[in-house]
Amino acid sequence: MGVSEANRKKCNEDLDNERKKCTFNPLELTHFLDGGAEKTKERKDRETYFLSDAELQDNVPDHYLSHADKYRNAVRKSCIIFRKIKELQAQGGGVDSYRQLLGGQLGGAILKDGNPLTLHYVMFIPTLMSQGTLEQQALWISRAWSLDILGTYAQTELGHGTFIRGLETTATYDPSREEFVLNSPTLTSYKWWPGGLGHTANYAVVVAQLISKGEKYGIHPFVVQLRDENTHMPMPGIVIGEIGTKMGMNATNNGYLGFENVRIPRDNMLMKNAQVLPDGTYIKSPNSKLTYGTMVFVRVVIVQDCATFLSKAVTIATRYSAVRRQSEYVPGEREPQIIDYRTQQYKLFPHLATCFAMKFAAGWIWDMYNNVSSEIEEGDLDKLPELHAMSCCMKAVCSADASWGVEILRLSCGGHGYMTSSNLPSTYGLVTAACTYEGENTVLLLQTARYLMKAYHQASSGQEMTSTVAYLRGQPKLKKRPWANTIDRYVRAFKEVAAGKIVLCAQNIERRSQTMSPEDAWNMTSIELTQCSEAHCRAFLVERFAGTVAEGNFSVPLKQTMEHLCELYAVFWMLLRLGDFLMFTSLTTSDVEYLRERQVWLLQAIRPQAVGLVDGFDLHDMVLGSALGAWDGQVYERLFEEAQKSPLNAKPVDEESFYKYLKPLLKANL
Amino acid sequence: MGVSEANRKKCNEDLDNERKKCTFNPLELTHFLDGGAEKTKERKDRETYFLSDAELQDNVPDHYLSHADKYRNAVRKSCIIFRKIKELQAQGGGVDSYRQLLGGQLGGAILKDGNPLTLHYVMFIPTLMSQGTLEQQALWISRAWSLDILGTYAQTELGHGTFIRGLETTATYDPSREEFVLNSPTLTSYKWWPGGLGHTANYAVVVAQLISKGEKYGIHPFVVQLRDENTHMPMPGIVIGEIGTKMGMNATNNGYLGFENVRIPRDNMLMKNAQVLPDGTYIKSPNSKLTYGTMVFVRVVIVQDCATFLSKAVTIATRYSAVRRQSEYVPGEREPQIIDYRTQQYKLFPHLATCFAMKFAAGWIWDMYNNVSSEIEEGDLDKLPELHAMSCCMKAVCSADASWGVEILRLSCGGHGYMTSSNLPSTYGLVTAACTYEGENTVLLLQTARYLMKAYHQASSGQEMTSTVAYLRGQPKLKKRPWANTIDRYVRAFKEVAAGKIVLCAQNIERRSQTMSPEDAWNMTSIELTQCSEAHCRAFLVERFAGTVAEGNFSVPLKQTMEHLCELYAVFWMLLRLGDFLMFTSLTTSDVEYLRERQVWLLQAIRPQAVGLVDGFDLHDMVLGSALGAWDGQVYERLFEEAQKSPLNAKPVDEESFYKYLKPLLKANL
Repeated sequence: MGVSEANRKKCNEDLDNERKKCTFNPLELTHFLDGGAEKTKERKDRETYFLSDAELQDNVPDHYLSHADKYRNAVRKSCIIFRKIKELQAQGGGVDSYRQLLGGQLGGAILKDGNPLTLHYVMFIPTLMSQGTLEQQALWISRAWSLDILGTYAQTELGHGTFIRGLETTATYDPSREEFVLNSPTLTSYKWWPGGLGHTANYAVVVAQLISKGEKYGIHPFVVQLRDENTHMPMPGIVIGEIGTKMGMNATNNGYLGFENVRIPRDNMLMKNAQVLPDGTYIKSPNSKLTYGTMVFVRVVIVQDCATFLSKAVTIATRYSAVRRQSEYVPGEREPQIIDYRTQQYKLFPHLATCFAMKFAAGWIWDMYNNVSSEIEEGDLDKLPELHAMSCCMKAVCSADASWGVEILRLSCGGHGYMTSSNLPSTYGLVTAACTYEGENTVLLLQTARYLMKAYHQASSGQEMTSTVAYLRGQPKLKKRPWANTIDRYVRAFKEVAAGKIVLCAQNIERRSQTMSPEDAWNMTSIELTQCSEAHCRAFLVERFAGTVAEGNFSVPLKQTMEHLCELYAVFWMLLRLGDFLMFTSLTTSDVEYLRERQVWLLQAIRPQAVGLVDGFDLHDMVLGSALGAWDGQVYERLFEEAQKSPLNAKPVDEESFYKYLKPLLKANL
Repeated sequence: MGVSEANRKKCNEDLDNERKKCTFNPLELTHFLDGGAEKTKERKDRETYFLSDAELQDNVPDHYLSHADKYRNAVRKSCIIFRKIKELQAQGGGVDSYRQLLGGQLGGAILKDGNPLTLHYVMFIPTLMSQGTLEQQALWISRAWSLDILGTYAQTELGHGTFIRGLETTATYDPSREEFVLNSPTLTSYKWWPGGLGHTANYAVVVAQLISKGEKYGIHPFVVQLRDENTHMPMPGIVIGEIGTKMGMNATNNGYLGFENVRIPRDNMLMKNAQVLPDGTYIKSPNSKLTYGTMVFVRVVIVQDCATFLSKAVTIATRYSAVRRQSEYVPGEREPQIIDYRTQQYKLFPHLATCFAMKFAAGWIWDMYNNVSSEIEEGDLDKLPELHAMSCCMKAVCSADASWGVEILRLSCGGHGYMTSSNLPSTYGLVTAACTYEGENTVLLLQTARYLMKAYHQASSGQEMTSTVAYLRGQPKLKKRPWANTIDRYVRAFKEVAAGKIVLCAQNIERRSQTMSPEDAWNMTSIELTQCSEAHCRAFLVERFAGTVAEGNFSVPLKQTMEHLCELYAVFWMLLRLGDFLMFTSLTTSDVEYLRERQVWLLQAIRPQAVGLVDGFDLHDMVLGSALGAWDGQVYERLFEEAQKSPLNAKPVDEESFYKYLKPLLKANL
């Protein structure tokens, strides 16, 4: 339940007191984050519409069900969501995006472990739109949109993920019948991972190596029917099933798919870009960079999702830390709230600050993406490499930071954080997946590093630099500026670290290239290269944080708190990467003690505002889905209530295990 | 399957080649780690005896079952294990410890997500032994040993874990009936977490606040019957059930327990130490430190378990990295094994080195524990504080390192590491639990820090120092020794860092104490204090690693590899904590480049030995339980086979979800 329902339920007293301590109005923050009061209202209306639907509640939580029953319940609920979306549309309601309902924070509240129908809207239809000709769009999108067919997107294979050029599935053109013949030549060429592929979708866009007239033309997208529309039986030559259980997202029905001479009409190749003519002649795509846009889009969305996951975990852990009392601080006095321990604050507040750092930086990239997209439509691709490089390292750094943060926050809740009912374990299962999908993090960091190495050489030759790498101008000759404990100096220092590491990498590659191949020199330097991408991204995050706080139109108390959070974020990372700052900036060992003191001071300064800040995220109790994090702070009551939902607790004795196994063992000696 | 069965199955070619590359015999390492060839044989015989039993195999893996069925299958298998143990004993077979079969690597191979009967042998019986009088032992241990009753150990409550003085359950003595009356005065006083408590055990040792004649005497252990021995129904006044699903260990049947005026005879208080006489007179325990021994023992066992978990993950990820080929290293050439990427080696080998660091340090503490235990029996408690401090930080640092390592290793396997069939997600679920149980890590680090602060003051006043803190002698006046790139200098540097941080903390506490209470000064310094405990522990780990390698009787090639691993461990941590080394040792920024170069060189040097090293751990395929890590390296075949075990894949169409939900949705528009 959100801020506005504050008074509905009796609250834990400690939480009540925390709310009185906060010196700003959390609603101000909520409106700022939503983008205005009107947007907040829209969001909350949509939450009420979906979350108050009795059909979408579970009496027995999914984690007590068998894997197959989890899947069935997810299909049931997905179908209800789809119907409700149609109702909303019929009423003229403003559902501008399916994403919120399928993968975002609202969708995650209804389907905690994934939605088997998501890819239909999130990948299948968008791919038809971006890769299909107008005729293909007319045919397939209308069928997909009206739910005449259900699709997914099958790209990844058992043997290849991020490196898509290595995909092995073949689509060989047969001009005699004007058909493509799809095959899985090896076990590793089986499609593996696509959501909804297992038992749900009946169509898919399949990415395969195109072969025509004996020539290989690389990967292209094809529409393939997987199952009979009436019986759902697999089509001839289609080998299909689900890939089994995973660390998380166990309701997404990820599937595998093999082809044994599966024939599809020539028209099923999506031909907006490249084409195969009836006689088998291949016509190349005019511009291969056009598809970069979608990848950038998806990665920005991932950064936003990471910020949401982290906000959930921060809300849960912060409220719990205000309610939990433990140990003896001063002998004879009442046990303190654990949020008063500096070590606990150190587990909470840097990650609270990180939520804002991610949200602000994602917003900036989002704007850049929109600008660059319009430029691309006008044929100007100049800024695409910079945008791509920034989206790569942002996806990698933010997914890694969010995963790390969620785990620290889970551990900060002690044993109770290990309970499923805290919702922290499954939040971790979801957020850590983002380190791997849509481009594995190390690979992405190295892609950014390639861009940075180029940028370094451009800067060295005196070329004009774009904004995110402008700091490379004049490196490495620049004299280090004197140290000062101001946020501007800190921002500058993060750039000096990034620049220093970039210069060092470039020099190392150059030096190594004298005695080995360029590939080996790159490989030898690759650990440092990933670290220089991270430093570049960190500088960007700190700068966008400081910039947004400086420009933001906040009330005085909220502004001050935001400044503290921004400073904490900077100081926290300077201390974590202390060696870098000692090496590449004018910071000296005698400055370090101030930073340590300041970090402790900032934790203390944020302390009274902490609950207000997470209240400002305004995450509905069902979005949090946590016994530890609910608005009312009735932590122990909720833990106990959740335990009662276990089917094993329905009877005082579990007769099967007792009479079949335990009693014979116990009575064996009589 | 272990090394000796190497030739039974056709192996992946790349793995075969790796095994040819290795310059030492993995069996040498296996024997060293087991403690001799005879011990290896014993271990493997025991593995065969248990792991080849058809009754202990699962056709459908547990993770596809409902929560209740998982529990029932675990009870079934636990009972078989107990029977097999008895058979072994009857044959005079040498099962010297139940731990291997209940929690260790063999037990984990049979019951992957925990054993609901473990605490009977691991906590219930040992507590009866250590806390019961001879008469009590005669009565209870004989009943427990013959499985006439099944027990657990109920200490932790909803509101209190690590801080056991805060437990709220009361045991009030009623002299009129010579009984104790147990009550749960609050919701937070409910017992919460004990394994097997939910539906399995019928007895428990319950830790409660003793009250007699209106006086409170602190926590004491009581034997309480929970369920009727014939019907298994809860006894009057006993409120009992399971606490619900968790991040891992979902078969351990962790339970909750409340008391409503539950009466037990006076004799059920375990009175080896403290006593309550029939009239209610309380007689104090002669020495409260005696119970420290068990805590130390449990923490050393946890360190060993952490090393095992990490070894499993390293084995899985290393073998997978040798089999997996990905991307284009040199244009036009075959995709390389991913183990050839320096970034991948950086994810694998430091954690491979960590396995040895943990094993060797744990071995040393184990010996120290045995020595100190005999001293304690002779009344000499001098070394107990040092042993306790060392066990606290070792448990904290090793559980944190192992959890971090397992996650890095899981992520190094890309998407496949996210599959349950990799066994990496559940390995993480088990190892991360160790960060919280048996003393929460931050609390333990602060306990070690208390000891270090005392040690610092002793050192300052010129007292004799025990071995693990001998490096504090003469601090902070000691002149920094010149830098040198040798393992001895590195070990020294780790001690200098620890000493430097300890001195700084002591000074900060002193300075702060002038303007605030000692409690506040401690709290303000607590983040640094946890870091100084970690530095102390790290120095110990590096020193024990270097010492064991230097003393070990290895063949030349194995010795060299062990030296490389030890050096990598040191260099890796110096670079991760670079700021500390620049601040507290004579290392200068110009020395850093050598360390970076050296790290890359060491990764390359270890590369050809990596598969041989993990083969040397000799973890049975069933212990690994991983499609990615099996001896034969048939990664893709096994992933595919495992997927076929999903009950959803039993039929081509899941009729329930299709006919009930999907078809109506799809046909709604016709």
